[in-house]
Amino acid sequence: MSTLIHKLNETRRIIDQEIDRVLFLPNDLTSRVIEAMRYSAIGSGKALRPFLVLTVGKILNLPISQAIAIGTALEMVHVYSLIQDDLPAMDNDTLRRGKPTTHIQFDEATAILAGDALLTKAFEILSRPESLPDPTIRCKLIFELSVAAGTQGMIGGQMMDLIGEKTPLNKSQIEQMQSLKTGALLKYACLAPAYATHSSEDVLKALSQYADSIGLLFQITDDLLDVEGSPEIVGKTLHKDGCKSTFISTLGIQKTKALASQLAKEAKESLSLFKDQAHDLEEIIQFILSRKK
Amino acid sequence: MSTLIHKLNETRRIIDQEIDRVLFLPNDLTSRVIEAMRYSAIGSGKALRPFLVLTVGKILNLPISQAIAIGTALEMVHVYSLIQDDLPAMDNDTLRRGKPTTHIQFDEATAILAGDALLTKAFEILSRPESLPDPTIRCKLIFELSVAAGTQGMIGGQMMDLIGEKTPLNKSQIEQMQSLKTGALLKYACLAPAYATHSSEDVLKALSQYADSIGLLFQITDDLLDVEGSPEIVGKTLHKDGCKSTFISTLGIQKTKALASQLAKEAKESLSLFKDQAHDLEEIIQFILSRKK
Repeated sequence: MSTLIHKLNETRRIIDQEIDRVLFLPNDLTSRVIEAMRYSAIGSGKALRPFLVLTVGKILNLPISQAIAIGTALEMVHVYSLIQDDLPAMDNDTLRRGKPTTHIQFDEATAILAGDALLTKAFEILSRPESLPDPTIRCKLIFELSVAAGTQGMIGGQMMDLIGEKTPLNKSQIEQMQSLKTGALLKYACLAPAYATHSSEDVLKALSQYADSIGLLFQITDDLLDVEGSPEIVGKTLHKDGCKSTFISTLGIQKTKALASQLAKEAKESLSLFKDQAHDLEEIIQFILSRKK
Repeated sequence: MSTLIHKLNETRRIIDQEIDRVLFLPNDLTSRVIEAMRYSAIGSGKALRPFLVLTVGKILNLPISQAIAIGTALEMVHVYSLIQDDLPAMDNDTLRRGKPTTHIQFDEATAILAGDALLTKAFEILSRPESLPDPTIRCKLIFELSVAAGTQGMIGGQMMDLIGEKTPLNKSQIEQMQSLKTGALLKYACLAPAYATHSSEDVLKALSQYADSIGLLFQITDDLLDVEGSPEIVGKTLHKDGCKSTFISTLGIQKTKALASQLAKEAKESLSLFKDQAHDLEEIIQFILSRKK
């Protein structure tokens, strides 16, 4: 596990370096929004999504520079979603990744613009010939990212989450919400390297099953941390009041933990195709299952 | 001019039909955000940007289906910017295009998500092979749209606008702000059909000059309407308190009107290359100059 932590930190460093490179500060009045983007995106967070891109990319022989471009774009979309989730009109949170949320550190209008700009920049990165040489692959990656981030993906999940604050959702609705809200981008992280290397249907199917399992597992452990974690360690505002529809509010803690174990087992099984190349992807399952933040 | 109004209305109808087609309502809890997108994007607004795309596209022999795809994506980015501009943390407006703003009609969180989703959908549309067959052109259009909408374009202009509410901007800063905030997307409307048809440098230069002039003209007439218009006709909240940095607050009304006439003259001159094909683009200049909403 300590090797995995080291690899995650190394990914964080690589992605930070790339974000630093693409988000250069202009010497004019627009610089404030770029400062807010840099504040939100650089130097904190587990870099789980870029790590998945780089790890699957390595298995599928995707050139590292292309994996970095995809991972950076994806991390920007993830950070945009965090900035917006934290806004007063959404979760109204003040702490994220161990520091003040973007609208607290800057102001609400700047936070909204910084989120928008990170989303926009992600598509800019993926559209550049310097990122990936084949324009058909670039378009495929843009298309799949827009679907994963849009109403059929993350935004759809956020909408359901908001509705779930007022009306209790049933187990199948919670599963759909989580699969859209968190699962869609994690799935993109696992599948994007396969799109970029024209991988076979078998590979796509295996990665898709793995991504579905760890996506749901990730959200369940998130819910458990909300109930059992401490904000100092988790590094963000926790929601212990239970006003949201979660697996825990529907199944209770014990059944939720049993579901987590079952998902971890399924995730591991889905990797059989990759044999001894799957080591890091297997470690990620254990990492998510036992995470404290 | 009545022919132009007819053509603008016809463009509105075509784009509405396309938005209606691509934003179909799912039968689940995500439908609320799509309702908000449809509410904001369909049936109102001048459709000036799509009209420019269709008109320039016609001059350059761009197939109409491709022009509609580009125009629809661009209109979605424009509407996303309006939804966000109207938010309580930004201009806090309650009236837009003659009806309640999105956050008033729905709620703030749904409005934020609807804006995000429209931006995301725009990139989805441009990435689809059904929209434009050549993937290199699709990537070019996505790249240019992301630049026009991002920190070097619209978002940069919005950031300057926010700063200008607290610190007075000088004339050159106001010009930069307006050129980014409104000009970048109008320029994209004029240049996208040229990118999509591999037009010559001469054509790009002429369209670029035309776009710069009408972009600034459009913003100046917007400022004049804020001071001289009536909200019933303009259809949105007006800002008569002068807390913003505008050409009028810097130059006064008479000099601002003189600048508008000068820009209209320059816009017309830039069209000489297109000879008698430029009729609709010439009428647009007059339309912007004399608009009442």
